[in-house]
Amino acid sequence: MPTSLVVVHVEVHVKPDGVDAFVRATRENAARSLEEPGVARFDVAQEAGDPTRFVFVEAYRDAAAVAAHKETAHYRTWRDAVAGLMAEPRRSRTFASVCPDADRW
Amino acid sequence: MPTSLVVVHVEVHVKPDGVDAFVRATRENAARSLEEPGVARFDVAQEAGDPTRFVFVEAYRDAAAVAAHKETAHYRTWRDAVAGLMAEPRRSRTFASVCPDADRW
Repeated sequence: MPTSLVVVHVEVHVKPDGVDAFVRATRENAARSLEEPGVARFDVAQEAGDPTRFVFVEAYRDAAAVAAHKETAHYRTWRDAVAGLMAEPRRSRTFASVCPDADRW
Repeated sequence: MPTSLVVVHVEVHVKPDGVDAFVRATRENAARSLEEPGVARFDVAQEAGDPTRFVFVEAYRDAAAVAAHKETAHYRTWRDAVAGLMAEPRRSRTFASVCPDADRW
């Protein structure tokens, strides 16, 4: 088993009038993403004080799982559904998990 | 049950020669933090390409749990242990969880 997971943080800034549609599409995508065998976390949170800003915390078992996620129908549906709702391009950062241990995510 | 959790992201920049000591102190604090009844997540990850940068993703059941964490002996021990290892002050942002549902974190 790998000793760390691939953790991806995605910062999303949504147009004010797109927040409700974004949340609906994102809840659907997150639920389906958690069914992927290589996905350990798919957490989405909305910034306190600015409901147009979200962060996704996605944890994958390995790099292949990151690539596999991008090939899923639910990811592509989400990507297309939210394309017109973005206030600016999404930004992502990649990390390696430190703790908890890889089998505890 | 609350419909969302309080999610705190903490960005940490460590001095290069402090990384190993920081990881040791942080693993201990994270394990003990997960034993707190109000803590649902205490994930720590290290940035790909820059091992001196870390992000903590802490999810709490409510604001009282955030405050309770700061009062624990393990938090205070960690805070004091890492004080001299910081390259710059820590920065935090607060979010409300969107998904998964609050009882799934």
